[in-house]
Amino acid sequence: MRKSGCCTFGLVGICLAQQKNFSVDRNAPPGNLSTLPNGTLFEAWRPRAHILPPFGQIGDPCGHYVDTKDGFLHFGFLHDGNGAAGVTTDDLVHYKDVNPQGRQFIFPGGVNDPVAVFDGTVINQGVNGEPTFLYTSISYLPIQWTIAYTRGSETMSLAVSVDGGRNFTKLDQGPVISDPPFAVNVTGFRDPFALQNAQLDELLGSPARTWYLVIAGGVHDSGPSQFLYRQNDTEFQFWEELGQWWHEPANSTWGEGLWAGRWGFNFEASTIFGLDESGFNENGTIFTTVGAEWSLDPIVPQVSDFRDSLWAAGTVELSDGDIRFNPSFAGVLDWGASAYASHGQHLPAWSKASQKSGAPDRYITTIWLTGDFYDTTDPASNQQNWTGTLLLPRELSVGRVENVVNNELVKEIGSWKSQGYSDLVEVMTLKQVVVREVMAAISNCSSSTEPSRSFNVSTREAFQQSPKTKLFVLKASLSFPSSARGTGLKAGFQILASDVEATSIYYQFSNESIIIDRTNTSAASALNPGIISQTEAGRLRLFDRKSGDQQKIEVLDLMIVVDNSVVEVHANDRFVVSTWARSWYSNSTELRFFYDGQETVEFENITIFDGLYDAYPDRA
Amino acid sequence: MRKSGCCTFGLVGICLAQQKNFSVDRNAPPGNLSTLPNGTLFEAWRPRAHILPPFGQIGDPCGHYVDTKDGFLHFGFLHDGNGAAGVTTDDLVHYKDVNPQGRQFIFPGGVNDPVAVFDGTVINQGVNGEPTFLYTSISYLPIQWTIAYTRGSETMSLAVSVDGGRNFTKLDQGPVISDPPFAVNVTGFRDPFALQNAQLDELLGSPARTWYLVIAGGVHDSGPSQFLYRQNDTEFQFWEELGQWWHEPANSTWGEGLWAGRWGFNFEASTIFGLDESGFNENGTIFTTVGAEWSLDPIVPQVSDFRDSLWAAGTVELSDGDIRFNPSFAGVLDWGASAYASHGQHLPAWSKASQKSGAPDRYITTIWLTGDFYDTTDPASNQQNWTGTLLLPRELSVGRVENVVNNELVKEIGSWKSQGYSDLVEVMTLKQVVVREVMAAISNCSSSTEPSRSFNVSTREAFQQSPKTKLFVLKASLSFPSSARGTGLKAGFQILASDVEATSIYYQFSNESIIIDRTNTSAASALNPGIISQTEAGRLRLFDRKSGDQQKIEVLDLMIVVDNSVVEVHANDRFVVSTWARSWYSNSTELRFFYDGQETVEFENITIFDGLYDAYPDRA
Repeated sequence: MRKSGCCTFGLVGICLAQQKNFSVDRNAPPGNLSTLPNGTLFEAWRPRAHILPPFGQIGDPCGHYVDTKDGFLHFGFLHDGNGAAGVTTDDLVHYKDVNPQGRQFIFPGGVNDPVAVFDGTVINQGVNGEPTFLYTSISYLPIQWTIAYTRGSETMSLAVSVDGGRNFTKLDQGPVISDPPFAVNVTGFRDPFALQNAQLDELLGSPARTWYLVIAGGVHDSGPSQFLYRQNDTEFQFWEELGQWWHEPANSTWGEGLWAGRWGFNFEASTIFGLDESGFNENGTIFTTVGAEWSLDPIVPQVSDFRDSLWAAGTVELSDGDIRFNPSFAGVLDWGASAYASHGQHLPAWSKASQKSGAPDRYITTIWLTGDFYDTTDPASNQQNWTGTLLLPRELSVGRVENVVNNELVKEIGSWKSQGYSDLVEVMTLKQVVVREVMAAISNCSSSTEPSRSFNVSTREAFQQSPKTKLFVLKASLSFPSSARGTGLKAGFQILASDVEATSIYYQFSNESIIIDRTNTSAASALNPGIISQTEAGRLRLFDRKSGDQQKIEVLDLMIVVDNSVVEVHANDRFVVSTWARSWYSNSTELRFFYDGQETVEFENITIFDGLYDAYPDRA
Repeated sequence: MRKSGCCTFGLVGICLAQQKNFSVDRNAPPGNLSTLPNGTLFEAWRPRAHILPPFGQIGDPCGHYVDTKDGFLHFGFLHDGNGAAGVTTDDLVHYKDVNPQGRQFIFPGGVNDPVAVFDGTVINQGVNGEPTFLYTSISYLPIQWTIAYTRGSETMSLAVSVDGGRNFTKLDQGPVISDPPFAVNVTGFRDPFALQNAQLDELLGSPARTWYLVIAGGVHDSGPSQFLYRQNDTEFQFWEELGQWWHEPANSTWGEGLWAGRWGFNFEASTIFGLDESGFNENGTIFTTVGAEWSLDPIVPQVSDFRDSLWAAGTVELSDGDIRFNPSFAGVLDWGASAYASHGQHLPAWSKASQKSGAPDRYITTIWLTGDFYDTTDPASNQQNWTGTLLLPRELSVGRVENVVNNELVKEIGSWKSQGYSDLVEVMTLKQVVVREVMAAISNCSSSTEPSRSFNVSTREAFQQSPKTKLFVLKASLSFPSSARGTGLKAGFQILASDVEATSIYYQFSNESIIIDRTNTSAASALNPGIISQTEAGRLRLFDRKSGDQQKIEVLDLMIVVDNSVVEVHANDRFVVSTWARSWYSNSTELRFFYDGQETVEFENITIFDGLYDAYPDRA
């Protein structure tokens, strides 16, 4: 039997791969956790199905690629502030570290990167046909949009692997992009992402299969930008500047700023790809993802208050010979304040995982969930001996909601675009769902069904059958009457609940938001300010739909993934908010309904998959 | 009395600044010098009036500037392969090391220059108004035109001095020019030289007093180039590419290649300046100097057989919006095989030295005389404890020869340009003379006059009075009959002569060349192959001139500077060949006439200034 099976025990720790002497009493109140010996909280909040290194810190995902030799997908990520490490998978469920103990495949310290290695991208058939890491080589720190830019601090360099991705050896030469465009006073210039796109080829008259790079950054006193580059030679040495193909005014917003946050002052970690309804399609709609950095006034040097993980879909055109991206609709990839720095990968049908699952060409995105709020808090990191994780990988595609009533809800500038001009329109948006292989693996776990309910008075009613573990997936559909709009109605669930702890997750009509209320999530947060208890919130519009003569508010389809302390709330295949919920007590496993309001809400199709799976069956 | 007075002793060593126990018997035959203890030959061949560090190796001159605070002229030079050092002067005769023991003002080892600091240029009122060294920061070696270029090996970085040039502190940032122009496969890209030029300002529509940079290099499979850049901002951060303002086909020549060597495959150490007849003039004729590198077939990787020190004068124009330099006449700055890598400096009338001498705005050039033939030989370097020198600084201006008969001698494409179309024309060329202050100082030394002679049979007749030292200047005028053209006539002198040693310096009509025959220069060369005995040669055309009805061959005005082992042969203010003549015996001080031929040659105005002066009176 694979060790990767679902957990069937009540206690979280014993399902985790690394069983140490676990001397912390999770049935007694927690003290100041930083006084515990290092490593003693290793299992306490460690996720089981998520991607993270065997120990230490995980940073931005980057450098993903599909090995053309064996079809394995590689996910890379910054690690311990000391280069980048990676994992491989042939099924998107189970992972292996590319190096023992999760050792990095590249370290800083070369001529080009004496200070650090930041995000890169892998061209899987790059220099000499080998996987080639084109990365941000760092020579000077600090770097942030809030301070003057040090010239030459960020350059792009090459490293090549001839051993299946275990080591990327830096080319013995200088950077391939050594400077931002001439005399542009950038706020940042990093995180290259390589792509091929037939539409760009045609528009720009490039040879077929030309590689492009998008580099994220911005311009002081002007705003955030994506810098586009084009491959010039077969050695990937020279990259032709195509300018700032996307630029937004500093601190401006998409529409009123309700649906896609702020563009901020500087972009980070951006990607570009084409999608259609089935997934990756170079000739489909052009999408981009960015991390947007911004602060409230007054801006404090070296402090970026906010980091938004955004996406935009748009059109591409030549304007006075320059290529330009114009957003048509834009949204948030993950509303979690800790969710950031997404990196994506075209996963072709010939990849090992897709061959097994029968999936077509897909575009997979991975998002970082910072474990210490971008180095600003300490959630007992030494006691955990790990910090942060990647969120479950998602498939992106063009999503459509049909038969939507063409009212003001649709007409607002939002994270969607309506098609048609009649009373009923089709709404187009970014669809994002957890990759099918993960969903199938979750479905293999022990499942239970909770009977449907309807509520019209406040309740915190417990489920008849809560999960045995803190490793579970809860699915449910919530139906609202039209009268719910604009009211104070809140409807959802409490998870990880016990007498003294509970995390409330609910839809709140007053501001069309999904809330994760962590005020009472963890008994540990009182004495440990690094255990953040801030409320998370994300905005989801439930449209009015018509089926026959009936007009109804769209049903809210919720999926809540709980992987110990990692909580992902997915809704209607187009909304995700992810965060940490570090419940303390062993018995905080109860599920409850959550309802405040007057309008009747129907809770239906309630299923719990208990136990999850072990993403790393081979780890010691 | 200043220690810098002329030497009045017969022995060289005791006039030199550093008197050590001098145990080597220069009256006995030399053995294998590399067996001698280190330092024992320190004084043996050390020059007295030339610029060189107190010990160690001197490399390319670079980073000259005039301090606006005190008017002192700074000469810089690479030193010991470990950065650059400098000296200052207020009279162009006497020098002080900017740092004790000649310590460098900049060392390699920073983020931008982990491997080496190569040639740079000083903008005397640069960053924050302070002297700013814009230099070639080296990240990768080897670099040579004979091998593939390593990207990023040569970048341009800034260092600023706030202590009068003693230390240039590198800015804590990346290079200001981090790459050659896009996708240009350069053979080299180094040795920036900063200049201001009113003609360029006007042609390019630049603000007045804009700084320009010329960077020397070339393009693989194409040829040598000068890359021109324009200052973009007051912080000297950004330099706008103006392209390859001068490019020559690989291994091509000026004319038939007789008068300006080959352009070769790669340029090094180039400068640009404007001259008129009195010296520096931004609105005068545009001149440039370059080092040209080339080899005979087959080209051997990492071996450049030849390095020529060239100049060109030309016109500057805009062609399709690009600025272009077109040579009109070109020549050799110094014909010595060891003379290379010139660097120049505009020396304004307000400089201390010029105020003293009453000189107008001048352009001064300094030329390196490699002491070990570009690291390929060992002339007992450890025993000397020094290697190489700079040649005496020269003033450059537009030279004119008037009343020149407009015959084939003039019409050839050469290092001159004729003005006028009548029978008599004016020939314009580069005039280069040893700076007036040095000439004045030399004239202060003990002088003697040798009676005129005329010869028509071969002779090696000794002077009636030879110098007492190996530190002297010999001036003479040689007049030839018209019948001398095309014959085997050789006329000149032998210097540093004794029974067993002599260096012959003569004009040879058969190929219009001045020859320095070193076959018999040094008794030490037999057992010490590093004491090179190759013959030096340079081409000087003596035009036909008309005075009244008389047509005569131009008189050959020779000046031979002998500074112990350094020999500079200047002719007619437009020709120089410099080299090493490492005579061994103490008594090799005799001067002789040298004559082979049939045509009568008149030797007149023969003056010897004996002793030279000490350029470094303050050195211990």
